[in-house]
Amino acid sequence: MKKSSLIIGRQPIIEALENGKAIDKIFMYKSVHGDNIPRIRQLAKDLNIPLQMVPIEKLNSLSRGNHQGIIALSALVQYTDLQQVIDFVVSKGKTPLFLMLDGITDVKNIGAIARTAVCCGAQCIILPDKGVGALNEETMKASAGALEKIFFARVNSLAHAIDTLHLNGIAVLGSAMDTPKKVFEINFQIPACVILGSEDKGIQKFLMKAADNHFAIPMANSFNSFNVSVAAGIILYEAMKQRMPSHQ
Amino acid sequence: MKKSSLIIGRQPIIEALENGKAIDKIFMYKSVHGDNIPRIRQLAKDLNIPLQMVPIEKLNSLSRGNHQGIIALSALVQYTDLQQVIDFVVSKGKTPLFLMLDGITDVKNIGAIARTAVCCGAQCIILPDKGVGALNEETMKASAGALEKIFFARVNSLAHAIDTLHLNGIAVLGSAMDTPKKVFEINFQIPACVILGSEDKGIQKFLMKAADNHFAIPMANSFNSFNVSVAAGIILYEAMKQRMPSHQ
Repeated sequence: MKKSSLIIGRQPIIEALENGKAIDKIFMYKSVHGDNIPRIRQLAKDLNIPLQMVPIEKLNSLSRGNHQGIIALSALVQYTDLQQVIDFVVSKGKTPLFLMLDGITDVKNIGAIARTAVCCGAQCIILPDKGVGALNEETMKASAGALEKIFFARVNSLAHAIDTLHLNGIAVLGSAMDTPKKVFEINFQIPACVILGSEDKGIQKFLMKAADNHFAIPMANSFNSFNVSVAAGIILYEAMKQRMPSHQ
Repeated sequence: MKKSSLIIGRQPIIEALENGKAIDKIFMYKSVHGDNIPRIRQLAKDLNIPLQMVPIEKLNSLSRGNHQGIIALSALVQYTDLQQVIDFVVSKGKTPLFLMLDGITDVKNIGAIARTAVCCGAQCIILPDKGVGALNEETMKASAGALEKIFFARVNSLAHAIDTLHLNGIAVLGSAMDTPKKVFEINFQIPACVILGSEDKGIQKFLMKAADNHFAIPMANSFNSFNVSVAAGIILYEAMKQRMPSHQ
């Protein structure tokens, strides 16, 4: 299994960024300045890579070498631009089935969701660049290797990502507990992206507003709620079932 | 949240057993003999409580008190006799929807399955008294409290439990990956018990033979398999959906 590793120093980080190497996060000493720093800031911004200002002690604890005030954490998965994913999926004659994770911080849940997504034929998981767990070894383990079999699009704004989806004719669907429409009443035969919210907070309001349709997973008992990875399983199963040849 | 605790010494254990207190397991020093021991053995056998022979050091590590060669671990849940569960469910005018766990050792998975089972209206989880994880605090946490809202029937033979289910007109269904029949082709409107096997070994052959019907959860990609708690979610969702008034 691949492991995440450190990229230390300015020039190696610029090279990694320019060569499209997957990077999870960049730690930068808050007072750093000088050669190459504006270039790194710009590349990180263009590539939606989180730039985190840290005290020098954090960098020293990560590396005893000459880190020049900046260390990047390489990612376990290669993030892909959302539009590129859409173009690729459509070019293969597939109907997009995407997930958007909003506020899901448990990296094991993300791994479990990726596993189910691959089983059910979803092609992409859209993640925000903040407020979501990093895809690390634990995620990889929970995914049973699925992280390498699905696209991850990391975006700096989920709202902008919804715009991109809409421009490409992909319906955005939000799951919520208090919606009369049931998941099996949703048409999943069209290009679709399902937003999954965190178990405690649900989906953020502005994302629910931007969604084209809302649905609920029915419950036989008024007890708590489904675990988010089980909910993902139920929704993706319903979508997969509707897309099976016998159902079309 | 309730915590499991120890019951120490012969008389307290006999009293707990006779009063129907939930007991997860009894640790007994292998050379113990004398007063009350045969009685404890018999009660444990009658109540399907696992009796585990241990070296004296194990007991000493659990308690510094006078344990008299025997310590019981109280259970977080009250186990119920399978026939009693069936009688109760039927008396309430409900159609039985049960799960049988075969070889599922991850206690978090058991908790997650219980949570989904309660959400979907299943009434009972049947567990063997061996080869299954104990229902501990971790299980309780993963269940989001569901352990207290569903019956657990602990049996010393899953084969005998299937006989009991059959005598009560409950169909036994086994999930397997290599079965042509799909989960949505199964009739879940009848009284039913679904066997769930472990992810690596699946359901034991003799249980599959005893089952009335087999089904598979379809997969869009030939990748690994569903996590067992996600699989349980999909199966129970399908059963719940079929049992909704609009579908009958």
